[in-house]
Amino acid sequence: MQVFKGNFFHTPVYGKVEYLRNGLLLVNERGIIIDLVLSDNPSYSEIFDEARTNGSLIDFDDKCVLPGFVDLHIHAPQWPQAGVALDEPLNVWLDECTFPLEAKYANIDFAKKVYSDLVQQLINRGTTTAVYFATQHLNASIELARISSNLGQRAFVGKVVMDNQEQTHDYYRDVSSEQAILDTEKFIKAVRKLGEDVKQGVYPVVTPRFVPSCTDQTLEALGKLAKEYDTYIQTHCSEGQWEHDYVVERFGKRDTEVLADYGLLTNKSIMDHCNFIDERDGEIFAKHGAAIAHCPISNAYFANGVLPVKRLKQQGVKLGLGTDISGGFSPSLYDNIKQTVISSRMLTDGVDVKVEQEKRGVFDSKVSILESFYLATKGGGEALNLPVGTFEKGQIFDAQVLDSSHLPGFSMYKTPSSQLAKLLYLSEQTDISEVWIQGIKVK
Amino acid sequence: MQVFKGNFFHTPVYGKVEYLRNGLLLVNERGIIIDLVLSDNPSYSEIFDEARTNGSLIDFDDKCVLPGFVDLHIHAPQWPQAGVALDEPLNVWLDECTFPLEAKYANIDFAKKVYSDLVQQLINRGTTTAVYFATQHLNASIELARISSNLGQRAFVGKVVMDNQEQTHDYYRDVSSEQAILDTEKFIKAVRKLGEDVKQGVYPVVTPRFVPSCTDQTLEALGKLAKEYDTYIQTHCSEGQWEHDYVVERFGKRDTEVLADYGLLTNKSIMDHCNFIDERDGEIFAKHGAAIAHCPISNAYFANGVLPVKRLKQQGVKLGLGTDISGGFSPSLYDNIKQTVISSRMLTDGVDVKVEQEKRGVFDSKVSILESFYLATKGGGEALNLPVGTFEKGQIFDAQVLDSSHLPGFSMYKTPSSQLAKLLYLSEQTDISEVWIQGIKVK
Ligand SMILES: [Zn+2]
Ligand SMILES: [Zn+2]
Repeated sequence: MQVFKGNFFHTPVYGKVEYLRNGLLLVNERGIIIDLVLSDNPSYSEIFDEARTNGSLIDFDDKCVLPGFVDLHIHAPQWPQAGVALDEPLNVWLDECTFPLEAKYANIDFAKKVYSDLVQQLINRGTTTAVYFATQHLNASIELARISSNLGQRAFVGKVVMDNQEQTHDYYRDVSSEQAILDTEKFIKAVRKLGEDVKQGVYPVVTPRFVPSCTDQTLEALGKLAKEYDTYIQTHCSEGQWEHDYVVERFGKRDTEVLADYGLLTNKSIMDHCNFIDERDGEIFAKHGAAIAHCPISNAYFANGVLPVKRLKQQGVKLGLGTDISGGFSPSLYDNIKQTVISSRMLTDGVDVKVEQEKRGVFDSKVSILESFYLATKGGGEALNLPVGTFEKGQIFDAQVLDSSHLPGFSMYKTPSSQLAKLLYLSEQTDISEVWIQGIKVK
Repeated sequence: MQVFKGNFFHTPVYGKVEYLRNGLLLVNERGIIIDLVLSDNPSYSEIFDEARTNGSLIDFDDKCVLPGFVDLHIHAPQWPQAGVALDEPLNVWLDECTFPLEAKYANIDFAKKVYSDLVQQLINRGTTTAVYFATQHLNASIELARISSNLGQRAFVGKVVMDNQEQTHDYYRDVSSEQAILDTEKFIKAVRKLGEDVKQGVYPVVTPRFVPSCTDQTLEALGKLAKEYDTYIQTHCSEGQWEHDYVVERFGKRDTEVLADYGLLTNKSIMDHCNFIDERDGEIFAKHGAAIAHCPISNAYFANGVLPVKRLKQQGVKLGLGTDISGGFSPSLYDNIKQTVISSRMLTDGVDVKVEQEKRGVFDSKVSILESFYLATKGGGEALNLPVGTFEKGQIFDAQVLDSSHLPGFSMYKTPSSQLAKLLYLSEQTDISEVWIQGIKVK
């Protein structure tokens, strides 16, 4: 057993910070928090002294400790193009930049090099659980699962399926629907096998790229596969105006309905972006227990609108955050936590000052910094049905340790909510001195 | 003379990158670039060898060098509350947080401590020229000018004027209009005197907080003072819906017109935010040569709309960027460069997906990352009528030196525009290894 002592911040309740000053977290050998001992507990000194004596104490001293972040949406192969070509329209960005890059992962050495760098960079920024799109290639996708396992990060990985000849290129496509399904099944089995020895967990994810890139036959078969193997599912859903309209045109139904009909909208589904889902779609999401990965930086470039986070949360939809590398340039969930707040305020106030104030935005849409933090932590855990994202008893111990000593005014503003806000708004990667996943130090 | 060798990126023309690979910049003892020698110049080897031999060579090797940034809007006293209380409405944020904090700068020791930290933190992030609001206090304001001078940063500093009893608090206000003008005049003289020995320059700025906080008499007197001493001027202009409407109500004229009538809109004026200025106001700005400090992060919290940067640029208005600490939480112009792009895209696309696409946003409002970079560099120089922001001959040598070695895909994407975009989107403070101002190393 390990005993962690520190100043822990977390949000067990949406938007409400709880602060455990000099708290002790007792973590068992499986990496699960089995008890919390606060400093006013009569046994505190005894437990502290014993842990110090028997060498099981990890003392973070004056540092601040946050739960590790859950990044629900990352295109791992797009890491080399982070920050590039974002001024291009979506079709140019995809056809001339993204797909040619993803096609390179036929080369396994290239894949190893990029994926090793990416996973470590994400860990360094406090991302302890990551949900990845790999590429169309079976072997490189398995390699991503292996690399994250070896580096100690909890990973959900999908071999991307894209077989619709009308919406894909000859040089980068599954050769057939049958092959795509076979490869996905092989991928599921390989990652399940790999996962037997991975303490923090690694999981296969059924991953149609999005409805436009898949044939009806393939969407149907993927839904069945996900059911047969009880896997997680991820795809893009109603991301932008084009995609939303395309699906309505092809099926006469909205994206959400199509995905639900094919068995792809379950309580193990992570649906990326979803900017164009309406109230009815929100109800379908809530009913199925499907989650949304909100990627606010990427959305500013490619989604043509802001996700109404507050409304969806009120509808009972599970919500977490994603970087969407490289539609989003930043590998940091800190940046996405901040942009979630900023985008929600722009949704509230509107953007065009020539429109009168009452009609400019969407009333009552603000998301606070603490709510946004919840999305990046416990919200991600809820999306994945995993006990991560807080320091409550029974949760997995995933943590990032922050040095607040250089933050301006940190000691002047003493309330936990002010201090957590400062940590979120002002911390930089180098302020994260340690990262722990399932009780193991990985940075 | 000094000879700087490096890979220099700059944008002499709006939105167009120029890349000087292994260029040599010859800088005289006043810190002015007197010549550029490119690697295909026949004299290159000779100049390089001579500089190496006589010890005047500063070789940045493979590092990337950008012009120093110009931050046109910083409330220096608000630094301790960066990242705090941003979920509060503006009146609470001002009355319960900001004004009580600013009132503390009656204590000169407190001022020294905060200002020393802030100026160095800004330098560390590549900000080589800074335009500051101090507080209402004469002595603490002079102290800010002194500290930035000593730390080597080029600074424009204003003692804040706020004497309107109806819009200020008893505990934090100029005691009278007369005293405010007297103090401002003393301030101008003190900073001019100080500036005689400051190589990189330090400048007094006439600084009414904004129209609502000043009486008519004071606004008029400040305009006269600025004219008499030929000083820079700064104030908030049409920042949010409330301020814009308040001025129309009080004067029957728009903020821009009021400021112009009082002689506060000149070619040495920096007007902060300006989100609510219309086409007529834009023309008045262009006619007077007044500049706008665009603060996109702050605007998301307090401005109720997005500045139409592209339209104003087309109208010929001078434009640069500001952090607006602490309405903006970030001390980094990198963050504001990125948010300028993001906000411009949200202005273009709109935010509410229930509005039909054609009516959702403002057509053709996108600002590219290279255009945004121009605003933070040469745009800032134009705003201040100063030869800074590029590496052209005759410009002051202000530079930040960046280590690109860990950036993903930096060597795969070789065009200067891709590389500059990556530097802007992905660099962190710790990647800035050196900062130079007017030929002197300050980090
Ligand atoms: Zn995506
Ligand atoms: Zn301001």
